[in-house]
Amino acid sequence: MSEPVTVAVDANGADLGPAEVAAGAAQAAADGTRVLVYGPADRIGPVPDGVTVVDAPVSIAKAAEPVMAVRGTPEASIVRAARAVAAGEADALVCGGSTGAAVAASLFNIKRARGIYRPALAVPLPIPGAPVLFLDVGANVEVRPEHLVQFAYMGAAFARAVMGIERPRVGLLSNGEEPTKGTPDLLEAHRQLSEATVAGVQFVGNVEGTTLTAGVADVVVTDGFTGNVALKLMEGVSSTLFGAVRAAAKSSPRGKAGGLLLRGSLRGLRDELDPEAAGGAYILGLRRVGIVHHGRFTRRGVARAIAVAERAVRESAVERTQEALEAAGALRGAPSGAEATVTP
Amino acid sequence: MSEPVTVAVDANGADLGPAEVAAGAAQAAADGTRVLVYGPADRIGPVPDGVTVVDAPVSIAKAAEPVMAVRGTPEASIVRAARAVAAGEADALVCGGSTGAAVAASLFNIKRARGIYRPALAVPLPIPGAPVLFLDVGANVEVRPEHLVQFAYMGAAFARAVMGIERPRVGLLSNGEEPTKGTPDLLEAHRQLSEATVAGVQFVGNVEGTTLTAGVADVVVTDGFTGNVALKLMEGVSSTLFGAVRAAAKSSPRGKAGGLLLRGSLRGLRDELDPEAAGGAYILGLRRVGIVHHGRFTRRGVARAIAVAERAVRESAVERTQEALEAAGALRGAPSGAEATVTP
Repeated sequence: MSEPVTVAVDANGADLGPAEVAAGAAQAAADGTRVLVYGPADRIGPVPDGVTVVDAPVSIAKAAEPVMAVRGTPEASIVRAARAVAAGEADALVCGGSTGAAVAASLFNIKRARGIYRPALAVPLPIPGAPVLFLDVGANVEVRPEHLVQFAYMGAAFARAVMGIERPRVGLLSNGEEPTKGTPDLLEAHRQLSEATVAGVQFVGNVEGTTLTAGVADVVVTDGFTGNVALKLMEGVSSTLFGAVRAAAKSSPRGKAGGLLLRGSLRGLRDELDPEAAGGAYILGLRRVGIVHHGRFTRRGVARAIAVAERAVRESAVERTQEALEAAGALRGAPSGAEATVTP
Repeated sequence: MSEPVTVAVDANGADLGPAEVAAGAAQAAADGTRVLVYGPADRIGPVPDGVTVVDAPVSIAKAAEPVMAVRGTPEASIVRAARAVAAGEADALVCGGSTGAAVAASLFNIKRARGIYRPALAVPLPIPGAPVLFLDVGANVEVRPEHLVQFAYMGAAFARAVMGIERPRVGLLSNGEEPTKGTPDLLEAHRQLSEATVAGVQFVGNVEGTTLTAGVADVVVTDGFTGNVALKLMEGVSSTLFGAVRAAAKSSPRGKAGGLLLRGSLRGLRDELDPEAAGGAYILGLRRVGIVHHGRFTRRGVARAIAVAERAVRESAVERTQEALEAAGALRGAPSGAEATVTP
């Protein structure tokens, strides 16, 4: 058995409070992961077995300007957790709630991996039977073609290392399947991805909104604005539809009886669509593994996020991403890459 | 009773063929609309009562380059229908299938209304209980802030005239509710819309993907890239979810029985979600009313598209849009508007 992996967890970003995060950490610890929990010790209470609590009561989880808060609050729990990862005291960072704070704390402390323009937020979409790694879902509102190209290779490497997809099919989200469809930046990214032949990556071209959830690609790449809108739209449409189905079922005695009979069959579907099962969003492009889970996750989701982080460390996701980008000539400063100014 | 409205209909863009379009036209004619159908007379067969068939067998519905096809094929049915509207022989254009061809044929023949930068495609989203007019869903892949501002006022005027919403709430689709969220162009459009006070329009700020389908705004504005992706994503997610629910219901005898009992209650929901009920997408910003319906529409959807066109003409949607833009100072060349180059 190899060395246990150590994960630093910020306990201040969860809606259910630090004790719920500590309970999730305890579940992960029971599975053999070392967990350092950064949060207010007095609100966590008795320390669960296998978990180390580092008293870090200062929270910036509700800060209106997360980037400023990260810069100006070195004692904040999320910053301390990120620093622990940067210092090698932990192998991965897990935090919840504000992705802005998570990305900023990671960028300033753990830092970008060599040759990465911008980190990206990747989410495994909970699609029945056909999980899709979707990025960027919000780290970069505006991107250039070379960023999209890096996102594609980062996503593919992560899908291979952590999701176990041998040769991921990678697509670009666009307004039509034809390679002529999209913004000029997207067309350029399409051209670069089409021309490259990289072992272990299969570029499948443009993916439309209609087929994003249909399993035509394993990794779908977009800018952080479109990705964020799309991710939230999927959430909104699902909840509107399920709500409407529920209301329709309740509208008549016949419907009510039908709904009751169906409930058991739909439970499996609900589990498949469960966002907690995926463990949250991955911050790709850092020197270490970073994961942001949704603020409303329960201990189960937190435990899952820690488990995914552990797996990414064990599978050398960061190193393999670096190798994939190197092989594709997609690292910043690589002979084939364009020059670029980078804003953190 | 006022003069009947005349609608020019292209019969070549429907998947079910020209005869299906003519059958839809016949339904609209039975309701008192004069309909000119442009299509292959030999494939339409006996001319339905109240419908005039203009033999126009040349179709560019499947052209790979719709803009080029429109330019190079003056005898194409869609171009002839658009020319009839431009010449005043008809009051509105209805066509199906390729939005690219529809927008190009409209732009080159019916032309932009005075002071309009770019026409936009607007779709009433079939959301149970809370219809939302969503634009642009694909006419303009890239837009500037002044375009988004015009889309907002065009959408609001149309919602008022045709959907009967007294004082539409207008929002901008963005990656967060805060006014600081979005691309620089979106922030600028937000600023302009916040500062203007226009009678009959209520600007509600940013709308996220999560709430687009939740009835927080009556008109939601975005660029044609994001809008197209989002519209198709809603389609994709709905069909994936309904498919998964259906599969779950079939997975056990209990589920099957439940599904059968529920069927009646869900029929109403299906009708509410029916895209044919809305009649298709509206091309806003032209000198006359233009509507594009989905290629797969049946006669019912075609009849509905013609009915919506008729209503837009009767309600002077084009003139009222113009007045609203004038009042908002949002017309091109207006003192408060920025200078801009326009590409068709």
